[in-house]
Amino acid sequence: MFGFDIVARDTSSRARAGVLHTPHGDVETPVFMPVGTQATVKTLTPTELDEIGAQIILGNTYHLYLRPGADLIAALGGLHRFMAWPRPILTDSGGFQVFSLGAAIRDGVGKIADIFPDEDRYQRGERTLSRAEIMAHIDDDGVTFKSHLDGSIHRFTPEVSLDIQHKLGADIILAFDECTSPLDDEAYTRRALQRTHRWALRCLDFEAKEGNARQALFGIVQGGAYRSLREESAQFMAGLPFAGYAIGGSLGRSKRDMHAILEWTIAILPEEKPRHLLGIGEIDDIFACIERGIDMFDCVTPTRWGRNGAVLVSPATYRAEKEGQGEGHTAQRLNIHAAKYAADLSPLDPSCSCYTCRTFSRAYLHHLFAARELLGYRLLTLHNVFFMVSLMRDIRRAISNGTFAALRDGYFKS
Amino acid sequence: MFGFDIVARDTSSRARAGVLHTPHGDVETPVFMPVGTQATVKTLTPTELDEIGAQIILGNTYHLYLRPGADLIAALGGLHRFMAWPRPILTDSGGFQVFSLGAAIRDGVGKIADIFPDEDRYQRGERTLSRAEIMAHIDDDGVTFKSHLDGSIHRFTPEVSLDIQHKLGADIILAFDECTSPLDDEAYTRRALQRTHRWALRCLDFEAKEGNARQALFGIVQGGAYRSLREESAQFMAGLPFAGYAIGGSLGRSKRDMHAILEWTIAILPEEKPRHLLGIGEIDDIFACIERGIDMFDCVTPTRWGRNGAVLVSPATYRAEKEGQGEGHTAQRLNIHAAKYAADLSPLDPSCSCYTCRTFSRAYLHHLFAARELLGYRLLTLHNVFFMVSLMRDIRRAISNGTFAALRDGYFKS
Repeated sequence: MFGFDIVARDTSSRARAGVLHTPHGDVETPVFMPVGTQATVKTLTPTELDEIGAQIILGNTYHLYLRPGADLIAALGGLHRFMAWPRPILTDSGGFQVFSLGAAIRDGVGKIADIFPDEDRYQRGERTLSRAEIMAHIDDDGVTFKSHLDGSIHRFTPEVSLDIQHKLGADIILAFDECTSPLDDEAYTRRALQRTHRWALRCLDFEAKEGNARQALFGIVQGGAYRSLREESAQFMAGLPFAGYAIGGSLGRSKRDMHAILEWTIAILPEEKPRHLLGIGEIDDIFACIERGIDMFDCVTPTRWGRNGAVLVSPATYRAEKEGQGEGHTAQRLNIHAAKYAADLSPLDPSCSCYTCRTFSRAYLHHLFAARELLGYRLLTLHNVFFMVSLMRDIRRAISNGTFAALRDGYFKS
Repeated sequence: MFGFDIVARDTSSRARAGVLHTPHGDVETPVFMPVGTQATVKTLTPTELDEIGAQIILGNTYHLYLRPGADLIAALGGLHRFMAWPRPILTDSGGFQVFSLGAAIRDGVGKIADIFPDEDRYQRGERTLSRAEIMAHIDDDGVTFKSHLDGSIHRFTPEVSLDIQHKLGADIILAFDECTSPLDDEAYTRRALQRTHRWALRCLDFEAKEGNARQALFGIVQGGAYRSLREESAQFMAGLPFAGYAIGGSLGRSKRDMHAILEWTIAILPEEKPRHLLGIGEIDDIFACIERGIDMFDCVTPTRWGRNGAVLVSPATYRAEKEGQGEGHTAQRLNIHAAKYAADLSPLDPSCSCYTCRTFSRAYLHHLFAARELLGYRLLTLHNVFFMVSLMRDIRRAISNGTFAALRDGYFKS
């Protein structure tokens, strides 16, 4: 019941447009999937997601397992029915959250918001956790971890992760993997990779016995920022009968590292299978990764930024406002808290046709954020998700029309 | 441009159905107005309010004056345009917030949530303030108070309150009054009443000079729980050319006190003018007050309860669940946090046709509240406001059909 057709290719890069076929409908790629960590894309209804044009969302196995529980969701008819989202869903393996509870804490590269999904609304999510808070330990058979909710002890193995994902019932499920830290050396990253590969085989065995035709299993390529390990992992995974591939784990310490990792990996992965880059979603990354052959993205930034007052905008609006943060041309966003917006009657982005931009002024949205009104978090989240969905539609059209490079340059060349 | 027509009367009580005519459209009465303290009915869009059938909302002069400021709202085209709500609005005078900052703190009868509108979302709003926190002092000319936002000093007089309300541009505005505490003795309550009456005359003078035909001024009857004072106040106000009357201040210490106060007051107020009972909105109160001649209500409970997990339900659902709190038959609500709802696939109220009930199960809503997801606050608020709007529609129809008593008994006799 799962399939992937490539319908157009960019002539000057690896970018391609395609269609994923799933039991809950088709998904046009490249696609951005909003993240619904706790069975909700924060602040939005499924009806709004559908109206925006979101095609597929991601659910987090770790979080849903802990609360409300996979057995409960199964008893209630599965995740689609539970959250009233009739379109495709992908669930992750839980590997990233286990990393967040363990190695990320050890190495000081984790953020509270990665593991406490309800923290960031109070804008305290950026604190790193201390080493005393390490809550996960990995062995060759699986991972033992402490719940971030109540400290109770749990264990994930490849089989447990898949069993949970079967109960949740997503259209696309992921093999259980070990995410490594950017600070892990090559020797450790190799051992972890060999473990991830053994787990991939166990996942395929388990699927052969316990799987069903309504859920497609993707493998995950790991290997950190080490070329030989990424290539070894891509080769190993490419030889296995996965329905598609995710690229996960540490993507190095710079965007250049990430680009290299994608180039090493995608050169080896089978051309006819879909490729998902886990957890990436800033606009410059979207373009750079699509041009290197990525088909699927998920990221919390559009929703998290929306709750924090950061607004994704078109290149023209961004240049007019010169309000970006961070790396300048990569930011592409405004800060609604800025005093200059207090009396600004224009919409967030004059070129946007989302409900927020059709209805409200920057002045009103600035006020809602100053007053910490929940409606503000809703309206900026709606805008940002609409922005990402619209951007992906533009990109698909550009790939089909042979104008992908021109669209990219419109964003990043002034 | 303002008018009020009575279109039907109950034969066995003072209940009546009518139509308020305002520059932003007609309002059928009896009406419940959701409270939009900070230029937003918390969590809901104006589009949702319109779809629910809300006809008029209330804005708070005190809060909007402090943030974002009346001059700013005026410069942006007024409150209707600022918050994108094209239908009627009523603004209060600021008198109740001044009471909350002063006498209510002194007497330990105020709640944090009355003055800090963004506190209650963390469910800490029920703490009473200490006397050291008194922030308002009244003199014969007006009130000096400290902002709850930053401690800055401000002053309201009758003229200042109306000037702010002119800038906000609501369809119905209220005369500036002094609210007294239920602990004030008769002598103090009399002095305060005389002050409120002098202020009423100053408001009418100011309106004659500075008013406009697009805003109708209501007087406010005060007098605490003292019969002679309530009657004196009703007589005084009835003799003045107000477009309608609000009944404010302390309504005694019991529902029986409140009923008596309404009976004393409404017997004297002119029959042809609309009557608004400030701040009351529980279901049993709605029936009891309509039957005593009230036309208009505002209350934060449907929205605040929604954010706290309390669900208004029909009598049949309430009896089936037996989950009410407080005074038993007056409660009419379920607590979505209750463990029994964790696996309950039914909607909040099987007889309700709101979006929340058409789309989601109690189990899902229970999960959203357990996970402190913002979508939960939205969905219960939507349901509760829909419930109140639907209840008022049923009541209007019942008054016209001669079935008001039967509708009331359906709620409160089992």
